[in-house]
Amino acid sequence: MTTDQKKPGRSQRPQRLFWVICVSAISTGSALIVGGQTRPRARDLGIVVGVYPSGARDAITDVDGVRVGHTTIVEGDRVRTGVTAILPHGGNVFQDKVAGAVFVGNAFGKLAGSTQVNELGTIETPIVLTNTLSVGTAMDAVVRYTLAQPGNEQVRSVNALVGETNDGGLNDIRGLHVTREHVMHAITSAASGAVAEGSVGAGTGTINYGWKGGIGTASRKLPSERGGYTVGVLTQTNFGGNLTIAGVPIFRTLQPPRARGGAPFALADLDRASGDGSCMLVVATDAPLDARDLRRLAARAIFGLARTGSSYSNGSGDFAIAFSTSPEMRARFNETAARAHTTLPTDATSPLFEAALEATEEAVYNALFQATTVRSAIGTAEAIPIDRVRELLKK
Amino acid sequence: MTTDQKKPGRSQRPQRLFWVICVSAISTGSALIVGGQTRPRARDLGIVVGVYPSGARDAITDVDGVRVGHTTIVEGDRVRTGVTAILPHGGNVFQDKVAGAVFVGNAFGKLAGSTQVNELGTIETPIVLTNTLSVGTAMDAVVRYTLAQPGNEQVRSVNALVGETNDGGLNDIRGLHVTREHVMHAITSAASGAVAEGSVGAGTGTINYGWKGGIGTASRKLPSERGGYTVGVLTQTNFGGNLTIAGVPIFRTLQPPRARGGAPFALADLDRASGDGSCMLVVATDAPLDARDLRRLAARAIFGLARTGSSYSNGSGDFAIAFSTSPEMRARFNETAARAHTTLPTDATSPLFEAALEATEEAVYNALFQATTVRSAIGTAEAIPIDRVRELLKK
Amino acid sequence: MTTDQKKPGRSQRPQRLFWVICVSAISTGSALIVGGQTRPRARDLGIVVGVYPSGARDAITDVDGVRVGHTTIVEGDRVRTGVTAILPHGGNVFQDKVAGAVFVGNAFGKLAGSTQVNELGTIETPIVLTNTLSVGTAMDAVVRYTLAQPGNEQVRSVNALVGETNDGGLNDIRGLHVTREHVMHAITSAASGAVAEGSVGAGTGTINYGWKGGIGTASRKLPSERGGYTVGVLTQTNFGGNLTIAGVPIFRTLQPPRARGGAPFALADLDRASGDGSCMLVVATDAPLDARDLRRLAARAIFGLARTGSSYSNGSGDFAIAFSTSPEMRARFNETAARAHTTLPTDATSPLFEAALEATEEAVYNALFQATTVRSAIGTAEAIPIDRVRELLKK
Amino acid sequence: MTTDQKKPGRSQRPQRLFWVICVSAISTGSALIVGGQTRPRARDLGIVVGVYPSGARDAITDVDGVRVGHTTIVEGDRVRTGVTAILPHGGNVFQDKVAGAVFVGNAFGKLAGSTQVNELGTIETPIVLTNTLSVGTAMDAVVRYTLAQPGNEQVRSVNALVGETNDGGLNDIRGLHVTREHVMHAITSAASGAVAEGSVGAGTGTINYGWKGGIGTASRKLPSERGGYTVGVLTQTNFGGNLTIAGVPIFRTLQPPRARGGAPFALADLDRASGDGSCMLVVATDAPLDARDLRRLAARAIFGLARTGSSYSNGSGDFAIAFSTSPEMRARFNETAARAHTTLPTDATSPLFEAALEATEEAVYNALFQATTVRSAIGTAEAIPIDRVRELLKK
Repeated sequence: MTTDQKKPGRSQRPQRLFWVICVSAISTGSALIVGGQTRPRARDLGIVVGVYPSGARDAITDVDGVRVGHTTIVEGDRVRTGVTAILPHGGNVFQDKVAGAVFVGNAFGKLAGSTQVNELGTIETPIVLTNTLSVGTAMDAVVRYTLAQPGNEQVRSVNALVGETNDGGLNDIRGLHVTREHVMHAITSAASGAVAEGSVGAGTGTINYGWKGGIGTASRKLPSERGGYTVGVLTQTNFGGNLTIAGVPIFRTLQPPRARGGAPFALADLDRASGDGSCMLVVATDAPLDARDLRRLAARAIFGLARTGSSYSNGSGDFAIAFSTSPEMRARFNETAARAHTTLPTDATSPLFEAALEATEEAVYNALFQATTVRSAIGTAEAIPIDRVRELLKK
Repeated sequence: MTTDQKKPGRSQRPQRLFWVICVSAISTGSALIVGGQTRPRARDLGIVVGVYPSGARDAITDVDGVRVGHTTIVEGDRVRTGVTAILPHGGNVFQDKVAGAVFVGNAFGKLAGSTQVNELGTIETPIVLTNTLSVGTAMDAVVRYTLAQPGNEQVRSVNALVGETNDGGLNDIRGLHVTREHVMHAITSAASGAVAEGSVGAGTGTINYGWKGGIGTASRKLPSERGGYTVGVLTQTNFGGNLTIAGVPIFRTLQPPRARGGAPFALADLDRASGDGSCMLVVATDAPLDARDLRRLAARAIFGLARTGSSYSNGSGDFAIAFSTSPEMRARFNETAARAHTTLPTDATSPLFEAALEATEEAVYNALFQATTVRSAIGTAEAIPIDRVRELLKK
Repeated sequence: MTTDQKKPGRSQRPQRLFWVICVSAISTGSALIVGGQTRPRARDLGIVVGVYPSGARDAITDVDGVRVGHTTIVEGDRVRTGVTAILPHGGNVFQDKVAGAVFVGNAFGKLAGSTQVNELGTIETPIVLTNTLSVGTAMDAVVRYTLAQPGNEQVRSVNALVGETNDGGLNDIRGLHVTREHVMHAITSAASGAVAEGSVGAGTGTINYGWKGGIGTASRKLPSERGGYTVGVLTQTNFGGNLTIAGVPIFRTLQPPRARGGAPFALADLDRASGDGSCMLVVATDAPLDARDLRRLAARAIFGLARTGSSYSNGSGDFAIAFSTSPEMRARFNETAARAHTTLPTDATSPLFEAALEATEEAVYNALFQATTVRSAIGTAEAIPIDRVRELLKK
Repeated sequence: MTTDQKKPGRSQRPQRLFWVICVSAISTGSALIVGGQTRPRARDLGIVVGVYPSGARDAITDVDGVRVGHTTIVEGDRVRTGVTAILPHGGNVFQDKVAGAVFVGNAFGKLAGSTQVNELGTIETPIVLTNTLSVGTAMDAVVRYTLAQPGNEQVRSVNALVGETNDGGLNDIRGLHVTREHVMHAITSAASGAVAEGSVGAGTGTINYGWKGGIGTASRKLPSERGGYTVGVLTQTNFGGNLTIAGVPIFRTLQPPRARGGAPFALADLDRASGDGSCMLVVATDAPLDARDLRRLAARAIFGLARTGSSYSNGSGDFAIAFSTSPEMRARFNETAARAHTTLPTDATSPLFEAALEATEEAVYNALFQATTVRSAIGTAEAIPIDRVRELLKK
C-alpha cells in the first residue's frame, strides 16, 4: 500500500536520519487492502448519502483539472504527520488565479491566507494542508514554489493558502518535523486521478471522533438539467462529536478504546478529541460561481459536518475553502481591462449547495473508513472496525 | 385547542372583519390533542437527540426569565400568518439590555437589527418573528412598544430585532395582514411556562420539508460539573431539504403529497419548499457568555439544522439570534463606568455548543410533530402523519 | 426656494393639520439663494478636493440613470424630518436588480436590508433614508411600492433597503411623524438631474459637527484612460468630530453656538453631536464592479469621512451602500441560466476607490454649506456661516 | 545612530556574509540626528494633531507594559528589510493572553493569525511585522519562541500573529532574507521605553506616499474624567495617496523625485506607491475593553489613515490589530471557571476612538519625519525634506 522511500540526501542536516513515506499506491475507487484485510469506502459499504450521484472516482479530482498530492511523514516512533496539496489546475495558478473563497465555521485554527482570498475573491497558490505548528514552514514553501514557477520572475507578493489541523495526539508536533521539502513534494507530486485517503498526507496523524481520521474525499455530479456541474470535497478530519453514519448513531454503541481503560460511554468521551481538533474542507467545482457564491458553497461544507455528528467544539478549527475551476472565472495577474465572464446566477446555486452537503458527509466517512490504525510513542488511534460499522448499519 | 376571540373594535377599519385567534391552550410537556387525536412532541415518541437531558419543559422558557407570546392570525380563507415574540427577561429590556449576537447562516432573509446587535453586543427589545413582508410593521410596533415602556421617556433610538420566514405558500402574504396590534399582542401576552408549538404565531403559515412546519422549541440542561447551565432554542421552521429524524432518512419513504399529484420521490421534491423558505432560530442561555461567544453559540444552532436534513438552499434565510439572560452580562442604558462582570471563559463553551446543536435538532422535530394541517385558498400543508413517522422510526 | 404644499386629505386623520414641504427648487450647480443670501457649494468656494474632476452636476445623478427624491416634513414647531430616496435606475428595480453591497463602518444604526444585500450581491428596491425610528414605516412603504409595480404581481419577498440617522435633536422623533405616504412621495418624485441638498429630505433635521447638516452630494469622473467611469456619492450627515475643511482645522476657531452659552472650545464640544448621530452614504458608479468590489468601494466612502474630521464615535451609525448601474451587472429575478457579464477586474479598482474618497469628502462639505438653519421647539442647529468659513479657508 | 553588529556565525550558511544592523540608538522623544542634521518628530515641528495630549514618550510604549523590538537588516546593496516585534506585556503571553482583535481595512495582505484572534478574542503571541514574503518564516519563529518559553512545555497549538508590508521597492524581497534568528532577535530585544522610528525594523525598506516610510508611533492620554486611559499606536507605513500633513495638502507642491525624471505632479504619481503597498497598524490601550470593542478601536486606526491622505488602493493591505493590556481582560490558558472582569462599557468608548484616530495620524507623520533615505540596487526612497515640510506647514 505504501512505498517507503528514503528522502534524498539533504547535506545541511546530514546528522538526522528520517524517512518520507510517499504514498504512491492509491485506492482507485475499489477497496483499500491493508494487511490482507479490505477497508472499503462509504459506497463499498452500500452507504447512500443524499440524492445526487457521485462522480466517476467519487473524489475531488472528478472536478476536471484538480490535482492532489500527499507527503506522508513517518519517522521513528514519534513522527506521524504530513502534507496534502490541492492544485486548482495544472497551469501557473499565480498567473491564472481561480475564483475562490473561505468560510469560517470556527476559527480556533491557523489557516493562513483567508483574508486576502475573501477580499480579492481569488486563490493564487496551491492549497496546502499540514499540522498546526507547521503553517509557517508551509507558507514559506508555497512562497518559494510560486516565486520559482516560470513566468513568475517579477512576482513580489504571494498569498499562500495553508490550512491545518492538530495531529499532536499521535505526532511529536512540537518537534516541527515538516520541512519545506516535504511541502514541495506534496505540491510537485500532485496528480489528477484517484486520491489516496485515510492515514496519509496531512491526515497521517489526525483523529476523528476518537478513531483514526485522515484525508477523505467524495464528489457529486448534478444532472444535466441542473447544469451537469461537479462538486468535489476533500477533507482533513480531526474533530470530535457523536459519530453518526448515514443517520445511525454509531457513538451510542461503538466507542473508541480509551488509553485510560475501557469504560462505557460517558460525557467525557465527547470531549476527548475536541481539544486541539479541527476540520479542514476544500470544495472544488467546475460551476462558474463568483467568489461570493463560492463562499456560500464553502459554508455548506461546514454545515454538512453536522450530519456526521460534529460537535463544532470550541477548540475545533473548522474552515472550508471553495474554488471554481471554470476558466470563465479566472483572473489574470495584473489584468485591468473589463472582460466578459459567463457566470452562473445566484438563483441557480441550490443544487450545488446540496451537492456540497452530500459530498462533505461522504468524504468524512471515507476518511474514517480508509484510515488505518496509527501508533506512536505519543498515542494510538485505532481504525474504526469496519465489521462493527457494517453490523450497526444493517440494523 | 384555540380560543377564537374577536379583536376589539378598531374604529378606523370598521369595514373589515377579521379574527385574531390567540392560542391560549398549550402543550404542557404532554401531547397536544387535535380532534381527538394526539400529536406528540419528539420525546413523547421516544426520540432521544444527543447526549444531554432536556430541561423541565423542554422549551426555551426553561431558561429562567424568558417569555414567549404568540398572535395567530387566521382570517377567512386566505390569511394564515402570525407573530411570535421572545422576551429575554421580564423587565425593561431597553434599560437593561442583554448580551446578544446574531449568526448569519444564509442571509436571503430580512432580519432587521442584526448589524447593531453584532456591533454593540446587546439586544434591547423583544425579539419578534413574523412573515417576510411584515418586518417593517413589526419594527414599527417594537419601536412604539419600547417608547411607551415606563422609564423610556427620553429614548430616541431603538434597535428593533425582527426576523421572518415566508409563509406565502399558505398565506396571502402580499395582503400585508399583520398589524401593529398583532405584534403588540404577541409581546404583551408573552409568558414564561410552556410554549405553544406548531401552527401558531409566526409559524401559522410556514412549511417545513414540504410538511406543515411552525414553531418548535426544546432545551438542554448541562450537568452541574459543566456549569449546570440551560440552553433553550425556539425555531420558526420554513425550510426544505431531505427530512431526517434522529438519523432516519424519512424523506426516502415518506414524501408530502404534492398539489400536482402523488408522484414518487423525485429531485423536484427537493426544491419545492426552498423557494422562499427560511429558518429563524432563537437561542437563550443563562450561561454568562459575552457577545462574541454568543455569536458562536448561535452558529451551532445554524449547524444543527443539518442534522434534520436542511438543504440550506439559496432561498432559505437562515439566521440564529442568541442571548444570555445572565444579569452579569447586562448592559445598562448609557452606562459608562467600568464594572465587573462574571463571565464564562471561552474555553468552557464546548458543552453549551453541543447543547445548542441538540436543542435545535429537537426543536425542529417538535415544530413538525406539533404542527397541524393548515388549508387556505392559497395552498395546503399537511401535518406530518405521526403514525407513519413512528413506524419508520421503529425500523 | 421651497414650495409649501398641503398634503392631500387623509380622511382617517382629519383632526391633524400638517404640511409636507416638497422641495422642488434645487441648487443646479449654482449657489443656493436663501433670504437673499447666497449659500454656495464647495466648488463655489474654490475648494478643490483631491485630484479627479467632478461630473457635470457634481452629484450622484452624474451616474447615468440614478434618481433622487426628497420628502421634507416640517410641521408646526416640533416636526423637522423627512425622507430621501435613491433609485438605481428608472426601470423595475426588483425585476432588474443592480449589483450592490453594504460596508459597515460602525453599526450603531438601524439600516435594514444589509444582510441580504451582502449575501446575494444585489439591491432590489429603492434605497430610502429617513430618521431612526421610522425605518419600520419606510420598510413597509418600500414593500408596498414594490408589490404594486407592474410586473411584480407574483412577488412575495422584498428586501427593502432603508437607512437612517437620528434627527432627534431638532425633530420630535418619538412622535413618529413619517408616514408611508411620505416615503412613497420621495420614491415617486425621484428624478435625475440636479439634487437638492442641505436641510431637505432625510437631512431636514440632522446635525453635523454641531452645525446644521443634511443631504450632500458630489461626484468624480475618471479620465478616459482609467475607464472614464463616474462615481457619485450622496450622504445624510448627522455625525460629530473635529470639523476640518480641505485640511483646515475649522473646529479650532469656529465652534457652533451652544444652547448652554458661548463657552470657548472644550472637550465637551466633541461629544455633543455624537450621541445619537450617524452618517449614511450611498455610492453609485457606472463601472461594472461586482458586489465584492462594490463593498470595497463602499468602504472608501466610510474612510473618506475621516478627511472631514469625523470622530466615528460609538453612537454614530456609519454605513455605506454602493451599487453599480452597469447593465452588465444586473441580475434578473429568478434567472438561473449562466450568462456573460463584462466586469471590471479587481486590479482596476484603485482609481474608483480614490474617486469615492474624494466625492465623499466633498459631499459632506456640500451638505454643510447648503444646509440652512433649522429651529424647532426641540432645538436649533445653525447653518455654518459661509463668510467665516471663507475667511478661514483663505488663511 | 546605529550599531553595526555582525550576526553570530551560522555554520550552515558560512559562505554568505551579511550584517544585521540592530538599532540600539533611539529617538528619545527628542529629535533624531542624522549626519549632523536633525530629523524631528511631528511634535518637534509644532504639529498638533487632534485634541488630546500625547503620553510621555508619544509612543505605543506609553501603554504600560508594552515592549517593542526591531531587527534592521541591511546587507550589501540589495537587502533592506527587517522585523519589528510588539509584546503586549512582559510575561508569558501564551499563558496570559491579552484581549485582542483585528480590523481589516483592505485585505490585499498576508496577515496571519487574524481569524483566530477574532474568533477567540485573544492574542497569545508577540505581534510581529516583517515583509510580505517572510510571513511564513516569522510564523515559524514565533511558534518556536512560544514553544520554548518556560511554562509552555505542553503547548501544542500557537496562533502566531504576523503582519507585513511589501518592501520590494527597496529590498530584494524575492531573496527571502529574513531568518528565524532575525525574528527571534526582534522579540527578545523588545523593550519598554522609547521606540526607534523611521527606516528601522519592519520599516527598513518601506515607502510611504512615495517618500521613505517606516515605523512610526504616537500616543494619546485621556483626561482623568474620561478614564485617564492611554492609547498607543505603532505603524509600518508603506502606502500611497495624496500626502496631507495636519490638513496641508503637501502632495500638491512637494512630490517625491521619480526614477523616470522630475516631471511635475501627474495622476501617475498617485499610483506609484500603491502597487504592493500596505499599512500595518498596532493599537495598544490599558483601557479594559473586550475584544468586540477592541475591534472597533482598531477600525478607527484604519479610518485615521485617511487624515494623512491614504488612497486605500486596491493593492494596499491595511490591517489594524488592537489589544488591551488590562490585567482584567486577560484570559488564562485553559481557564474554564467563570471569573469577574472589570470591563469598560461600550458607551464609554468614544474618547478612546478619538484617541486612536489622532495617534494613528501622528504615528504616520512620525514615520515619515524620522525615516532616513534608503538606497539600494533595487531602488531609492528619499526621506521627506523636513525644511520643505516646515515651510509648507507655515503657510
